[in-house]
Amino acid sequence: MKLYHVIGAKQYDRQTLEDIYETADRMEKVVKNGGSDIYSNKIMTTLFFEPSTRTRLSFESAISRLGGKVIGTENAGQFSSATKGETLEDTIRVVSEYCDVIVMRHTDIGAAERAAAVATVPILNAGDGGGEHPTQALLDVYTIKKELGTLDNQHVVMVGDLKYGRTVHSLSYMLANYNNVHITFTAPDNVQIPLYVKEYLKERGISFSEEHDLKKAVQKADVIYQTRIQKERFSSPEEYEKANGKYIINDDILSYMKDHCIILHPLPRAGEIEHSVDADPRAAYFRQAQNGLYIRMALLEKCFEQERAETIRDYVNV
Amino acid sequence: MKLYHVIGAKQYDRQTLEDIYETADRMEKVVKNGGSDIYSNKIMTTLFFEPSTRTRLSFESAISRLGGKVIGTENAGQFSSATKGETLEDTIRVVSEYCDVIVMRHTDIGAAERAAAVATVPILNAGDGGGEHPTQALLDVYTIKKELGTLDNQHVVMVGDLKYGRTVHSLSYMLANYNNVHITFTAPDNVQIPLYVKEYLKERGISFSEEHDLKKAVQKADVIYQTRIQKERFSSPEEYEKANGKYIINDDILSYMKDHCIILHPLPRAGEIEHSVDADPRAAYFRQAQNGLYIRMALLEKCFEQERAETIRDYVNV
Amino acid sequence: MKLYHVIGAKQYDRQTLEDIYETADRMEKVVKNGGSDIYSNKIMTTLFFEPSTRTRLSFESAISRLGGKVIGTENAGQFSSATKGETLEDTIRVVSEYCDVIVMRHTDIGAAERAAAVATVPILNAGDGGGEHPTQALLDVYTIKKELGTLDNQHVVMVGDLKYGRTVHSLSYMLANYNNVHITFTAPDNVQIPLYVKEYLKERGISFSEEHDLKKAVQKADVIYQTRIQKERFSSPEEYEKANGKYIINDDILSYMKDHCIILHPLPRAGEIEHSVDADPRAAYFRQAQNGLYIRMALLEKCFEQERAETIRDYVNV
Repeated sequence: MKLYHVIGAKQYDRQTLEDIYETADRMEKVVKNGGSDIYSNKIMTTLFFEPSTRTRLSFESAISRLGGKVIGTENAGQFSSATKGETLEDTIRVVSEYCDVIVMRHTDIGAAERAAAVATVPILNAGDGGGEHPTQALLDVYTIKKELGTLDNQHVVMVGDLKYGRTVHSLSYMLANYNNVHITFTAPDNVQIPLYVKEYLKERGISFSEEHDLKKAVQKADVIYQTRIQKERFSSPEEYEKANGKYIINDDILSYMKDHCIILHPLPRAGEIEHSVDADPRAAYFRQAQNGLYIRMALLEKCFEQERAETIRDYVNV
Repeated sequence: MKLYHVIGAKQYDRQTLEDIYETADRMEKVVKNGGSDIYSNKIMTTLFFEPSTRTRLSFESAISRLGGKVIGTENAGQFSSATKGETLEDTIRVVSEYCDVIVMRHTDIGAAERAAAVATVPILNAGDGGGEHPTQALLDVYTIKKELGTLDNQHVVMVGDLKYGRTVHSLSYMLANYNNVHITFTAPDNVQIPLYVKEYLKERGISFSEEHDLKKAVQKADVIYQTRIQKERFSSPEEYEKANGKYIINDDILSYMKDHCIILHPLPRAGEIEHSVDADPRAAYFRQAQNGLYIRMALLEKCFEQERAETIRDYVNV
Repeated sequence: MKLYHVIGAKQYDRQTLEDIYETADRMEKVVKNGGSDIYSNKIMTTLFFEPSTRTRLSFESAISRLGGKVIGTENAGQFSSATKGETLEDTIRVVSEYCDVIVMRHTDIGAAERAAAVATVPILNAGDGGGEHPTQALLDVYTIKKELGTLDNQHVVMVGDLKYGRTVHSLSYMLANYNNVHITFTAPDNVQIPLYVKEYLKERGISFSEEHDLKKAVQKADVIYQTRIQKERFSSPEEYEKANGKYIINDDILSYMKDHCIILHPLPRAGEIEHSVDADPRAAYFRQAQNGLYIRMALLEKCFEQERAETIRDYVNV
């Protein structure tokens, strides 16, 4: 049986993404109708080697809305087997026997791929260190699609920490599936987008540019993707404050934006979008968070649907 | 839709309390009959910014006995968004999208009210710092009603830490709804009941007095509400030991009590009620803990019942 | 009502074990058929005063596969009542009211027995300090039965830390129920099997011997039970490395083993079985881990089945 792993943003082509959007649309209707018990016999394990409350709760809500059950651990420091020297592969082999899908957050790049290599159930990567966070990227592109109707012909301005913020990397990879996309990178010099992301965009024929002036950048934008500047990355508090103060979205910035332009943010925020902005209809970040639920339900559906299809195929082959 | 938030003890009048007692009585029958699956499509989030295992388990049992599901976090230190500088309001907005009710424990006074101001689902306050713990107060008054038949005409003696123990404050506010109640405060001088609680009782016409001699105090009592003396509040271990030793309920104290007088304690206890007391039928604290389950089921029922009523109203209005 | 507590390995006789094996066989079929909802109204509490992720997840999966619900705490340090000075007995009394079965892991020998003395629901001991871990022992003997057809006439070689590793103690006690069993203990001198285990085996007429040469030991074995050498037990790193290096199961050791001999390990492992061994069909430790799920489902069935039987008896007696 081929398992439906979710490892990285590059595994998705345009058609696959469209299919996920449609499933997510359907999942929104399921939630609005009070949920379903279609997967009441399914168990999801949340294996979080580092805490990420929001992502974990979003996944736990997703399986619950489909009738399924959750087992898991919310903190790596408490995963006692790991502290006793067990390899990730051994852990995954054993935990595979306890459930029908594993949602994993890990501190190491590539951990999700290693897990998928030995797992007997699907692995959903909920972030692997400085690597990827594909379910976040999926909810980001889904939100753009839902808010603006299409991902083609969009001008996306990415703002803030573009170096360490893995969500902008994954989002860039996914945008590369669409036509006539332009990306503007607006970041302090020391946290600018990495060369390997730019190389990937070049290969895929996606145009991009850099713009240090946020006011200029937002004027042409259809989508502004704001991120949190992570204080700990800077060499001094002064340098951090300068960069941080430079790229705040407030009422003034709103006045430079197009009427249809949406503001996204992976959340949590810590001051880089002022609270006065929340009331503006272009502030889409809470709707975006809500879409995370539908996307994660859609991915779970894909995992189990696949299994159903394979079961039917086996049955037909017999 | 008007949400059924549970924020503080003062929000309850006599009629509302009676309604909750009746619902709790009904919930006891549900449990004794093996539970229900009436709310199998409901998700409760336990958002505990500080651990409180007993209260959390009680709520998780309550939703489970009604067929519902739980997602959550048992420790604030692990709420990764909070450590990244997210406001409580942002957290609540996002978590509201994942569930149908939020049970919240927080370190700050007023946190539950702030949460309710932005939540799109009911907030059940499971303790907000030095503020209130209304579900504890509800199970306290429910226990008195169940054990003694009425809350009118009762003489309640509150013992121990009456300054920092928020349960005695909330209980005092609720007792103020009843007729001919008298409260005796028996506490070490440095942890005596605060002035603002006394002021509230005066305004509501509730009589109260202070009595430093536990033996004298218990002789007239219908209810003894014992609390844990919190060592860390005292200036020296010696002073603590003196106060602690002074107000222990033991077999000697039992001999001064009326036959119908019940002993309550919010638990956990740490020596202030001797274990030999447990066998006395007047020791009601384990029955009280059990009532916590029924009260929390009743509050969940109120949250969802309200929603059902509002849905019907919307439907009728269309 | 007599509760079905699982406290220690010595409580089982041959007939009881056979009954559990049969129930576990049945549970495997339940899992392969996609689970059951027979116990959808049951709540299991996982009360882990120290973390043990694998055991906890195995139990949580077991109740979930039977349709039941889980409430619990994954870390003792977070059990707030314990830190406030509450006795284990008080905790168990209250938690008993919230659920239908308690799975408990504790740091103190005898804790499970103390819990069972006051609980009003069954206690399943998931490890009590240096004491016992009976559900591990049950899955160990079940695996031998399943892999080799019988536990009679088996030569079991126990390897590694036989002093502190409580699983080999519990396993020894259970093996004592069978005919013509021989146990070989292969351990570094400073972590050899304790005298009290040997005494028990003598009393029960079980033959055993010691063998320091792993190659010699495995040649006659039907079962090799490998355990992790716990570094912290040794007086110096050098001594640890010597012992640790001495008893590694690798391709060379495989070549000395009989064709039908199986390798077991309670997991997690940390180097004492090389990964190249995993592909050998005699490596049974992942199948053993899987059996843990069926055994724990079987024990839960026993808890609830008992209750059903008692309910029927009460009914008949009325």
